[in-house]
Amino acid sequence: QTKIPDALTVIHSRKSVRTYLNKPVTKDQLEILLRAGMASPTAGDRRPWAFVAVTDRAVLDTLSFSSRGTKHLKGAAAAILVCGDKKKAMSEVWVQDCSAASENILLAAEAIGLGAVWCGIYLNPEPTAYVKRVLGLPEEVIPLNIISIGWPTGAEKPKDKWDPATIHWNRW
Amino acid sequence: QTKIPDALTVIHSRKSVRTYLNKPVTKDQLEILLRAGMASPTAGDRRPWAFVAVTDRAVLDTLSFSSRGTKHLKGAAAAILVCGDKKKAMSEVWVQDCSAASENILLAAEAIGLGAVWCGIYLNPEPTAYVKRVLGLPEEVIPLNIISIGWPTGAEKPKDKWDPATIHWNRW
Repeated sequence: QTKIPDALTVIHSRKSVRTYLNKPVTKDQLEILLRAGMASPTAGDRRPWAFVAVTDRAVLDTLSFSSRGTKHLKGAAAAILVCGDKKKAMSEVWVQDCSAASENILLAAEAIGLGAVWCGIYLNPEPTAYVKRVLGLPEEVIPLNIISIGWPTGAEKPKDKWDPATIHWNRW
Repeated sequence: QTKIPDALTVIHSRKSVRTYLNKPVTKDQLEILLRAGMASPTAGDRRPWAFVAVTDRAVLDTLSFSSRGTKHLKGAAAAILVCGDKKKAMSEVWVQDCSAASENILLAAEAIGLGAVWCGIYLNPEPTAYVKRVLGLPEEVIPLNIISIGWPTGAEKPKDKWDPATIHWNRW
């Protein structure tokens, strides 16, 4: 495995990658991503997450029909669904917890040379119902997103989104 | 500045730090954290965030009364409020965007040797009203959290939260 870049470099080189090489992603690599996801903080240390890690071609192809934003799953080698488990959650705060976990997964992908993109599912009723049906999720498990994963072609570049106008010092 | 560790090391060494040394945090350091926050992905590239970066002792002390979870701000050298700007947001998806930005801020803090902790404000009506009043936030700017920041004493250690039971392979 190649050397992992420093954390600030990875934060700034992460980009949304939707075009992938035809090259598999291993279970070990997905476990590195999942391990990073579970290292995120959660309110009251509830860890209200559940993950579906997908490498099966037929399942990825089926998931590509979830929404307009998931078509590129046809070309992805893997995906991780990040879900909230309402049995473990205190409240709607699971959305924040699982979003932090998702960012860790995206950064871990970038760190090991993979490309990934966060495809929103939560708050979209039809994609939510479709994903729940296709993957057989229990009633209390709510998909937040599908993170599609593969080896990047290099087509996508990071954006510089620095905007000091969004910062207020000491008070508004 | 000391060498920044690799991204996976930082993801796994990040912890919630509430006890700090009596040592200032500079504006340049806060800008490293804010820059990391703005590198996170947002739905539709809306970047619906707004930040209040606080180093003023009186403001930090006032913010320490926001909720039961913010008392330790009395000992913090700095804080960053991560807010959603509803004028820029598509929908409630700003909560996910700003949570990803918050995780980047926490990781950037760990990366440069600072300690930080995410103190939830959103979904808590009284803390939300208090923070909005104290900082003079406009109606459309909603505080998600207060991230308190300082130099760690070393008291807090990272948790190993790896739990393979939360992972389902290919379908539930």
